[in-house]
Amino acid sequence: MIKPSTKFAVIGLGVLGGSYVQALSQKGYYCIGIDVDETALTYAKEKHWIQEGSTDSSLVKEVDIVVSALYPHTFVEWVKTNQKYMKTGVLLTDVTGIKREIIHDINHELRSDVEFIACHPMAGKEFKGIQYADAQRFANANFIIVPTEKNTNGAIQTVHQMAEILGFTKISELSAEDHDRMIGFLSQLTHVIAVSLMNVSDNTHLVDYTGDSFRDLTRIAKINEDMWPELFILNKDNLIREINEFSDELLRFRNLLEKEDTQGMKAKMIQSTERRKKFDRL
Amino acid sequence: MIKPSTKFAVIGLGVLGGSYVQALSQKGYYCIGIDVDETALTYAKEKHWIQEGSTDSSLVKEVDIVVSALYPHTFVEWVKTNQKYMKTGVLLTDVTGIKREIIHDINHELRSDVEFIACHPMAGKEFKGIQYADAQRFANANFIIVPTEKNTNGAIQTVHQMAEILGFTKISELSAEDHDRMIGFLSQLTHVIAVSLMNVSDNTHLVDYTGDSFRDLTRIAKINEDMWPELFILNKDNLIREINEFSDELLRFRNLLEKEDTQGMKAKMIQSTERRKKFDRL
Repeated sequence: MIKPSTKFAVIGLGVLGGSYVQALSQKGYYCIGIDVDETALTYAKEKHWIQEGSTDSSLVKEVDIVVSALYPHTFVEWVKTNQKYMKTGVLLTDVTGIKREIIHDINHELRSDVEFIACHPMAGKEFKGIQYADAQRFANANFIIVPTEKNTNGAIQTVHQMAEILGFTKISELSAEDHDRMIGFLSQLTHVIAVSLMNVSDNTHLVDYTGDSFRDLTRIAKINEDMWPELFILNKDNLIREINEFSDELLRFRNLLEKEDTQGMKAKMIQSTERRKKFDRL
Repeated sequence: MIKPSTKFAVIGLGVLGGSYVQALSQKGYYCIGIDVDETALTYAKEKHWIQEGSTDSSLVKEVDIVVSALYPHTFVEWVKTNQKYMKTGVLLTDVTGIKREIIHDINHELRSDVEFIACHPMAGKEFKGIQYADAQRFANANFIIVPTEKNTNGAIQTVHQMAEILGFTKISELSAEDHDRMIGFLSQLTHVIAVSLMNVSDNTHLVDYTGDSFRDLTRIAKINEDMWPELFILNKDNLIREINEFSDELLRFRNLLEKEDTQGMKAKMIQSTERRKKFDRL
């Protein structure tokens, strides 16, 4: 379990990593920051979010819990190169947006005296960089723990406790398979739709007539192009299936319109209205 | 032009019609309400939004400006049956969400001593009924005047003035062709996408994991199933083309993912991000 003396290292001080050290340091925990970018380290130090910061990962030898806030492939590379610095018994966790492949790859690389427990704090942002870090966002976001049969109960309880310290109130567990299927639909498909809607044609001349509907559907078309293609490829099977199923549904609607089938369109709208009501926030 | 003594009749006291009589009466104008539903009339009378209300359209004989807030086909039927009651020189306007066909049909039916000027207040709501009327919404919404070569300058100026009285601040003019093309993309396509996304499969078990992205994209999947199929069919050419173009773009993205073309996906995301920035509210 996490004690007041527990020390953390966060690898990668971007939006999420920055928010982690912000929340942990504000609760009084000792935090180390590792980043290739000196300016991110300086920013975190000036905010007093980290006690020490370095571009040199050997600093993690001091800590009990290591959080990777890196992009997936960089995370795997980091483990290969730097796991030698971690103390025996360290708990390693992450923030990666897809889970099956990262769990497989990390467990394949990792020393047997270090335990990796996968987590997904669903609190991303369309902007890159620690200057957009804001741990306030955690309060309304989901924190998903993705344990495998390799994980100990102690590790699961520890990241649960960490999520509470970070400020998350909605904390749950999912299998890697269920997690990736859920993300493929709720998050990845929606981003593909928004990006595609924005890219259909240059409709920026319509800005004066644009109301909330179009703005709502395209808000997430502002997207981190360095991260998402990697996440999409790592969940390709799920996302391709979701795009195909959505595309089929779209064309079914088009065919109802083509036939001027008012009753058919009505039935679709009644169903979408009923289902969407269940997603209203209470 | 509209004078303090100008009398209005609003036909159809739903969300929009209700908001019209609310705004007009609050500015001191004499308003009559016509509706088939007695409870809507009672509601408007109790709120002092109308001076007189009736299920009998002959009441419009008293007024100078008649606003139809009916669904498209009902509007045409109303004109056929009830135009005999309108005074010579009356200005007839509407709130219909598509314009080419309604302008053609109304002008085809209408007496030559009454002028019809088409308008589209883009301030709809997913709920039906006068209890959802709220003229406050007009302040941030677009009011589009859709004049034809048949319209007089006086009529255009009068509805412009009416839009200001109603509280609209963004008032513009478009041709019926441009209006319907714009609506096909910004409004109708987005509703088809939201409805289809909600209908792909029953994903209501995912509600606990749902963040803002999915909620934003499906908010308008709660939709008035009595009105929209009619509007879609009346703009079928534009909407079918928009669905096809969007579907093609979606499949182009899917093919990039299929090939694991990171650079291709990045380019799409950079373009969508740049374009979307232009739609940010200032």
